Amino acid sequence: MLSNEVKQKLITIVTEKNFDDSKIERLVYSYDATPNFQSMPDAVISPRNSEEISDILKICNQYGVPIVPRGSGTNLCAGTCPTEGGIVLLFKHMNKILEIDEENLTVTVQPGVITLDMIHAIEEKGLFYPPDPSSMKISTIGGNINENSGGLRGLKYGVTRDYVMGLEVVLPNGDIIRTGGKLAKDVAGYDLTRLFVGSEGTLGVITEATLKLIPMPETRKTMLALYQDLSAAARSVSKIIANKIIPTTLEFLDQATLKVVEDYAQIGLPTDVQAVLLIEQDGPPEVVERDIKKIAEVCKLENAVSIQIAATEEEAMALTTARRAALSAVARLAPTTILEDATVPRSEIANMVKAINEITEKYQLTICTFGHAGDGNLHPTCATDARNHDEMERVEKAFAEIFEKAIELGGTITGEHGVGAMKAPYLEWKLKKEGIAAMMGIKQAFDPNNIMNPGKVFAKDSKKRVVITR
Amino acid sequence: MLSNEVKQKLITIVTEKNFDDSKIERLVYSYDATPNFQSMPDAVISPRNSEEISDILKICNQYGVPIVPRGSGTNLCAGTCPTEGGIVLLFKHMNKILEIDEENLTVTVQPGVITLDMIHAIEEKGLFYPPDPSSMKISTIGGNINENSGGLRGLKYGVTRDYVMGLEVVLPNGDIIRTGGKLAKDVAGYDLTRLFVGSEGTLGVITEATLKLIPMPETRKTMLALYQDLSAAARSVSKIIANKIIPTTLEFLDQATLKVVEDYAQIGLPTDVQAVLLIEQDGPPEVVERDIKKIAEVCKLENAVSIQIAATEEEAMALTTARRAALSAVARLAPTTILEDATVPRSEIANMVKAINEITEKYQLTICTFGHAGDGNLHPTCATDARNHDEMERVEKAFAEIFEKAIELGGTITGEHGVGAMKAPYLEWKLKKEGIAAMMGIKQAFDPNNIMNPGKVFAKDSKKRVVITR
Repeated sequence: MLSNEVKQKLITIVTEKNFDDSKIERLVYSYDATPNFQSMPDAVISPRNSEEISDILKICNQYGVPIVPRGSGTNLCAGTCPTEGGIVLLFKHMNKILEIDEENLTVTVQPGVITLDMIHAIEEKGLFYPPDPSSMKISTIGGNINENSGGLRGLKYGVTRDYVMGLEVVLPNGDIIRTGGKLAKDVAGYDLTRLFVGSEGTLGVITEATLKLIPMPETRKTMLALYQDLSAAARSVSKIIANKIIPTTLEFLDQATLKVVEDYAQIGLPTDVQAVLLIEQDGPPEVVERDIKKIAEVCKLENAVSIQIAATEEEAMALTTARRAALSAVARLAPTTILEDATVPRSEIANMVKAINEITEKYQLTICTFGHAGDGNLHPTCATDARNHDEMERVEKAFAEIFEKAIELGGTITGEHGVGAMKAPYLEWKLKKEGIAAMMGIKQAFDPNNIMNPGKVFAKDSKKRVVITR
Repeated sequence: MLSNEVKQKLITIVTEKNFDDSKIERLVYSYDATPNFQSMPDAVISPRNSEEISDILKICNQYGVPIVPRGSGTNLCAGTCPTEGGIVLLFKHMNKILEIDEENLTVTVQPGVITLDMIHAIEEKGLFYPPDPSSMKISTIGGNINENSGGLRGLKYGVTRDYVMGLEVVLPNGDIIRTGGKLAKDVAGYDLTRLFVGSEGTLGVITEATLKLIPMPETRKTMLALYQDLSAAARSVSKIIANKIIPTTLEFLDQATLKVVEDYAQIGLPTDVQAVLLIEQDGPPEVVERDIKKIAEVCKLENAVSIQIAATEEEAMALTTARRAALSAVARLAPTTILEDATVPRSEIANMVKAINEITEKYQLTICTFGHAGDGNLHPTCATDARNHDEMERVEKAFAEIFEKAIELGGTITGEHGVGAMKAPYLEWKLKKEGIAAMMGIKQAFDPNNIMNPGKVFAKDSKKRVVITR
């Protein structure tokens, strides 16, 4: 609970209208898109500019009040769940596109801009912002930056981090700093820009961002390759890239996913095959044509049972939509959906998918696996019921084994969803004690009183590593 | 001077053969490629592996001995000059290419590998590592990572930072950490990988790196556009990119540079024009052909007086070599060459070149300007004589005004050369007190005893900002 003194000070900063500690508002912001996490904040605050945020942080720092910056709360790691109470900070007044600079190919935005709104504004100028997280229709760009969001185009174009050129950040001590700028090259000091990208609101509040844009690809083509053999699909992924083709999108859906997606979207997807690759290439028409042809050859050589190239933009759209609908489709199977994103080097995709299937069987669960095969970022997704404690225990054990396996294969516990509260206990598996200590040093340097999104990234206790037996 | 105790402990770690405190060896490593900086180290040490480096750092940390990791010392910011004495650490035993992974498109190397040797090994496999700092024939990849080196292809392909996927680093406390991996997507914790890139050896010793590779572009074309008007050349740069073409290389040479380069290289460069753009595009043949044609049209529209497209690979090579020879050519003019790299958003190139010319005239100096126009990274290069104190004072004033102007135009004091000792006093101009304080917090978290390359990046005193009058 906030003391009356703190409450009055905060109201003085943002005015009565932008401070809300009603039960209903607190309830609304007590959870995010992550299943099984809920915790009431003490208040919800909506500052109008960086200076107000600076004043708010000074108060929080002085009184030790936790503060959780929140975009649309679409993250899947409980990154914006106020697990230790305190204040949820919203950006509803800081949601403007400040500038699209066509000479320097940059866009400058406030954090509250909806990702897709920004993308539409950019595309109107014939420019392109590649990161396309599945939540882009509702996610904010501030949230994307804090989580370093990925998406379907990561293989060819990289992730959010690769497009952030400069930031304005308010630090816990109230300092407002600017990092980077409209500069392709800038080595003046440590790379604070990228330190903040993906820091999940634990180091400061991002209040403005300058993002890199690129010219819009001229054209795009989409194809499906069907397989009766999972390893053949995985092998195709490696072979395409070893053939020196980097497709925009190289998505994988297993049979379980295909079935639920078709059931949900009814677009004529094949459900009698073991796996599907959804492949997209963009660029100049000659190059796209040639690449798609070569990709089809590789897939055939790797025993694809059928290859379909979308004839029209609508057909292509339908295929992409099917992939994008995977999560929603799986979510219909059971009350609780847990979407994970263990990631491996792409050469290990076949081994990883095989391990996921074995683990699923071992624990008698329903896990559909789909994801960004081209960048090794898989999304094993479990349809379960949080009220079934016995099953939830098995789910947790299964995912622990999946993370363990990913790390064993040279991978990571999270490719694009973030650590938040959910993955924090597993982070040490990837980074070791020494890596966590290095990160903790940075956290303490920026936020000695631990007011910024406490309880995230750094776990109170690390889980013991399991031993995978097979 | 090292105490006998420290010396004996270090020898125990690396053996007598790999420890040298002879006067001649210390002299050799008392300076790097930066004019006007020299300082004797106490010893030079050549460890054979990460474990030895860990033991060395523990000793340095315990006894407060400065340690300066050094590749080939080609940096231009006195980044590897042992300004506070201590130990220079060499990587001559850690210079192996450990793996080229054709499935995951990565190369894993030790820091002492010569950049061009690595590039040749990669190109043999039909793969491409784009960063091409001018010093690549002698620079090491470890040095490139520590300085976040750029090069001629930065516009299209980015800089070293954009290709570092994972690192092994020894921290000042002796901890050995691993960051990232062969993963296109990895959000497990803070981005330590990119924090170390460009940290100039002030946070730890990089002992291994995994770098991203891309397929080799199929073909390449080179052209020259000549201008009688500087602003027309600068305008062409912006227009090409506003036309949604991102060339691989978009280099600018002013008349002063053209004259000295032609005098030096004798390859028939025009010396009667005010400016030249050297433009290169790579990619699939159809695209290169089309882009070069379109670029030529833009240049003509912007009053290029002549456009030459290289007919053969040899002709193209000669043009690129001319650009690469610019520094050596200018260096022949006078005993001391000071190469700067003030950088601006590319839309401000014309303003920046104009300002450089005015400042040159004001201080009566010889400054040739060339550089990476496409990414706004200019290299105003002064031919002077360090023994002429009066002139050197004017040089310093001129460069201070150049930095001031760059920042005024939204730019930075260094695009690719680093801060080191040379730019440290100016860093606050770019980052403000608050930005420096944030960086200092990180430095102290990693290196509380300030043993890692002390005297670099963080200045004892910041220069007062000048007021530009015109």
